[in-house]
Amino acid sequence: MLVTLNDPRDAERVAARLQALGLWTEKFAHDTRTRALLVRADSAQVAPEVIEAIEGVAAVWVQPSAHPLLDAQMGRPVSVGNVTIGHGAAPVLMSGPCSVESAEQIDEAARAVKAAGGTLLRGGAYKPRTSPYSFSGHGGVALDWLAEAGKAHGLSVVTEVLSERDVEAVATRADMLQVGSRNMQAFSLLKAIGRVGKPVLLKRGMCATVDEWMLSAEHLLLAGATGVVFCERGLRSFDPSTRNLLDLGAVALLANVHRLPVVVDPSHAVGRRDLIAPLARAALAAGAHGLMVECHPEPSCARSDGPQALDREGLLRLANACGVTTEGGAT
Amino acid sequence: MLVTLNDPRDAERVAARLQALGLWTEKFAHDTRTRALLVRADSAQVAPEVIEAIEGVAAVWVQPSAHPLLDAQMGRPVSVGNVTIGHGAAPVLMSGPCSVESAEQIDEAARAVKAAGGTLLRGGAYKPRTSPYSFSGHGGVALDWLAEAGKAHGLSVVTEVLSERDVEAVATRADMLQVGSRNMQAFSLLKAIGRVGKPVLLKRGMCATVDEWMLSAEHLLLAGATGVVFCERGLRSFDPSTRNLLDLGAVALLANVHRLPVVVDPSHAVGRRDLIAPLARAALAAGAHGLMVECHPEPSCARSDGPQALDREGLLRLANACGVTTEGGAT
Amino acid sequence: MLVTLNDPRDAERVAARLQALGLWTEKFAHDTRTRALLVRADSAQVAPEVIEAIEGVAAVWVQPSAHPLLDAQMGRPVSVGNVTIGHGAAPVLMSGPCSVESAEQIDEAARAVKAAGGTLLRGGAYKPRTSPYSFSGHGGVALDWLAEAGKAHGLSVVTEVLSERDVEAVATRADMLQVGSRNMQAFSLLKAIGRVGKPVLLKRGMCATVDEWMLSAEHLLLAGATGVVFCERGLRSFDPSTRNLLDLGAVALLANVHRLPVVVDPSHAVGRRDLIAPLARAALAAGAHGLMVECHPEPSCARSDGPQALDREGLLRLANACGVTTEGGAT
Amino acid sequence: MLVTLNDPRDAERVAARLQALGLWTEKFAHDTRTRALLVRADSAQVAPEVIEAIEGVAAVWVQPSAHPLLDAQMGRPVSVGNVTIGHGAAPVLMSGPCSVESAEQIDEAARAVKAAGGTLLRGGAYKPRTSPYSFSGHGGVALDWLAEAGKAHGLSVVTEVLSERDVEAVATRADMLQVGSRNMQAFSLLKAIGRVGKPVLLKRGMCATVDEWMLSAEHLLLAGATGVVFCERGLRSFDPSTRNLLDLGAVALLANVHRLPVVVDPSHAVGRRDLIAPLARAALAAGAHGLMVECHPEPSCARSDGPQALDREGLLRLANACGVTTEGGAT
Repeated sequence: MLVTLNDPRDAERVAARLQALGLWTEKFAHDTRTRALLVRADSAQVAPEVIEAIEGVAAVWVQPSAHPLLDAQMGRPVSVGNVTIGHGAAPVLMSGPCSVESAEQIDEAARAVKAAGGTLLRGGAYKPRTSPYSFSGHGGVALDWLAEAGKAHGLSVVTEVLSERDVEAVATRADMLQVGSRNMQAFSLLKAIGRVGKPVLLKRGMCATVDEWMLSAEHLLLAGATGVVFCERGLRSFDPSTRNLLDLGAVALLANVHRLPVVVDPSHAVGRRDLIAPLARAALAAGAHGLMVECHPEPSCARSDGPQALDREGLLRLANACGVTTEGGAT
Repeated sequence: MLVTLNDPRDAERVAARLQALGLWTEKFAHDTRTRALLVRADSAQVAPEVIEAIEGVAAVWVQPSAHPLLDAQMGRPVSVGNVTIGHGAAPVLMSGPCSVESAEQIDEAARAVKAAGGTLLRGGAYKPRTSPYSFSGHGGVALDWLAEAGKAHGLSVVTEVLSERDVEAVATRADMLQVGSRNMQAFSLLKAIGRVGKPVLLKRGMCATVDEWMLSAEHLLLAGATGVVFCERGLRSFDPSTRNLLDLGAVALLANVHRLPVVVDPSHAVGRRDLIAPLARAALAAGAHGLMVECHPEPSCARSDGPQALDREGLLRLANACGVTTEGGAT
Repeated sequence: MLVTLNDPRDAERVAARLQALGLWTEKFAHDTRTRALLVRADSAQVAPEVIEAIEGVAAVWVQPSAHPLLDAQMGRPVSVGNVTIGHGAAPVLMSGPCSVESAEQIDEAARAVKAAGGTLLRGGAYKPRTSPYSFSGHGGVALDWLAEAGKAHGLSVVTEVLSERDVEAVATRADMLQVGSRNMQAFSLLKAIGRVGKPVLLKRGMCATVDEWMLSAEHLLLAGATGVVFCERGLRSFDPSTRNLLDLGAVALLANVHRLPVVVDPSHAVGRRDLIAPLARAALAAGAHGLMVECHPEPSCARSDGPQALDREGLLRLANACGVTTEGGAT
Repeated sequence: MLVTLNDPRDAERVAARLQALGLWTEKFAHDTRTRALLVRADSAQVAPEVIEAIEGVAAVWVQPSAHPLLDAQMGRPVSVGNVTIGHGAAPVLMSGPCSVESAEQIDEAARAVKAAGGTLLRGGAYKPRTSPYSFSGHGGVALDWLAEAGKAHGLSVVTEVLSERDVEAVATRADMLQVGSRNMQAFSLLKAIGRVGKPVLLKRGMCATVDEWMLSAEHLLLAGATGVVFCERGLRSFDPSTRNLLDLGAVALLANVHRLPVVVDPSHAVGRRDLIAPLARAALAAGAHGLMVECHPEPSCARSDGPQALDREGLLRLANACGVTTEGGAT
């Protein structure tokens, strides 16, 4: 926002009033006299009308919204199968293995997720892998195993789509389609996913700004997605002591200011199993509408991401620590 | 840690066992046969003895600790005046204005801090400013005002030292000396501060790794500091929508794995007043032993950082939202 | 690399010898006695045999290469049409508009590229755009215009593929297929592009490590690409004074140590037209095998990236400043 | 800069003209009609008068300069002893060991620097060290050795000041005082250094913006420094394959747009000895006014930074590769 002044002599007084509202400003001058105050992006959100009412303010000029469809979603939770995610809804637990490795493995994982109070089952049929020589998922058959496990245990299903060619196949088996971090700006894939008219879980790119993330959601909505759930999973970090840098400021911004559905994946964020619980609790405290956590019936056998996977008991403990209502009763 | 093998054929089996313990490993080979597994830094903490007991493991080679004095502090809280901060102690609230502007201002701020359940009063007498033309604090006289306000309201006092020449003056008035982010690796200053034998609040540099931060604490302890409380205040970010990037993974690591005293400054982290409460709650959920929050009796008049300062009511609401026990009774 | 020792007492002496070779090492110990020295990644490249010959060294354990196909390309330039890019070849100039806007525009651009000594014509038919409301290219028809302009002026043609569905169409018109930064790890797209058996220009992701970049090249080669030319275009930066952060260290590493073909795109790196020439010269000095620069016959009319586009004269000046042999004779 | 419009209908036309000048703009509107165009920071530098002359532009509002003293230095080189650094002067070579270890070592290093065509001798008497247990320099006596070696070989001398208490001692022995990266915003130290009225070498902080760097120079100039030479030495990076990320965009900006004296330290930037030469050449091509390179008569014996130090022959080769005029004749 740009706040123009009637009289340069009002600059200090107006700036003080804006400061009281939580706004950081920068002065713009002509002939050394201040004509306008530019409100910095890291300021609190204040309606233009509030500012226009300040004595001495000539006008408030704003940047047109870059994402009208997303704006219309603010305050509205997203429905995924019979689960509701977002503003006003109880936090959800999404869990499951990194990769769907067999019908038995995903069934056992689904049982653990259900027991821990989870409502969405996750699991990769198509896995993006940094190396072409790493296990990249069992593909179509794993989609079937995943869908069956979800049905058997009354869980909605979310899984990642890697290829435009797989969108239809995934859409017929999953309740929500996931866009991975590395594809957050793979726009052709976004369009193909949006077109099937389903809710989408949109992971944040490893160095994407919140604005870029929101614009990728706009791509999905414009193409036809019925809703977008944002998923923060940690940003690229310079510090090897944790894998990624979980940005709960962005989560708080989406959840509290924009009131858009956002969940957090602490497993990928830190990589360290001993930090998943504290960061999961922190995510919910920051306003996240849910958690996405990797679990595996037998982490030692996991074909990918084993070191960060929780086993059955670990998932249950996490759910309890986070206040998720588990099967056997309230926590 | 480096896990050496008796027989290369055991590599997969040992790696699976390490994976089950939450360890990420990389293989090292000689003549294409795996001889050792290097444990990555973002792995869960596991004692070497546990690994040595795995069948097939020849030995576990470790890197000598770089900070023996700090290691000896793990699990021990730090005493500041009559306040205790750290492992096992209740979370503390440190608050006060960015700058100590007058005796009245800091007294009023101290009253607000006390009313909100705070136990430490903060306020800058010497302010590091990016521009040499910005207000940089009232210096020595502000130290007196600060010390008096602390005494009058039964609050311990913490304030930043910018110059080696001011260390003595600050040490006679404050209960804890603060090292600012920009000075985290100003080693001469660290030594001078350590030598006065007081507890130190060590803010993390804007792009410091956790290891570098811990080594700066070692500098302080080696010079004579009686204890170090770490303070996370957000890292340099590429995203203008929040000012800095609050690293709660690092907080969880210090608090839960290293059991070192760590507090969080959400005010500087985000810059946005509307995100302070959710990030403060998140910090405590991640394991932080306290909060440092800027407040000002009259944010519109604040000579620095006004847009992020909470007023009296804002501070009280924050304390309530975070479960701090406030004056008039439990929350 | 991990250098094991016969006798812990040799540790200092061996470390000194490694230091003389340009290697940074970290000690690993058992019972406080040093058993091995781990060579850090930011060390100079030294053959294991050289290290094994040092007195006191027991063995050198290495990490198996993660990209055998790429290793086999080291030292070999890539052929694109009748242009050769890489180790031992003269630097090439690739240029053209951000978007192919009309047959006339791309023809005029091609003429300018040819006049400036360029050998490859670039131009976007499919444009990745952060916002779904931005111009995203004219698609198939623009491919035809591009191919015709290339043919008319004797230039090889490179253009970006955004969708798996467009790979065939692009492959029949272009001499080299480009993978954009945002798709560097869109693995399904990489596979589809690799399968057509053409050379690929692989732009680096905005926060990708060199290792990740090389692994994406391995994806392409494994799928069938005939060669990969790396393109550095700047990393995500926290500093608004330039748009991105050009990483010439990575360029020097690829060009000088790995001897892989690498070009630099200074236009996207800085965004500022007034810095393109100095960074283009710097790129070549660092070892880059070519430049990719945006030009436009009429920058004021450019539908995308106009502010960074050079006009005909600007491109000619740049070519001269960089020592590219231009039409009318040597520079 | 903010470009206001007389008539919203001129917005597109004015934006196109600004685009032709290399300016990126963002629209600000009132009642959906565009009132002003904000010029982004990563735009080419254009004088306000040029913009005011565009038809349809009402006015150009600017941000007052934050560093008037530095602005007055633009275009003026800095004198250090009998060496001139900056706009219009030939590139200089500064070299010497990381630490001054003995009178003999620094004398031998000075001889090598002189032979390679260097004009400034560097060497640390006081060393900032991440760990308190690392060698931190010989202090005052090393200053004497350094000054004598400089005098003996006709080299001006530059060395780092770590403590406010050492400023005087250093100022009497050195021709230029160096502020290290970790102290770029240690403002008390900056003031103390500025007050002795000497030229200062100001290294960039590991995640400092160019604006912050320039403001630290303003601190120095305001305190009394006779000139400031900027030194880029690489930013904090997420990629372990090089140590830091050399920002030649910032160098090009300072050298070409602001015409301020700037040198580059490729040794600290990459850490890898095999990349020093290509990055040194790149730095000069980007416009750097000099190089600062670590050398050591016997790298294997260096007490700090040995792996990145060049020996006598290596330094000579580097100087030749960079076109520095060496002792025995032209290069």
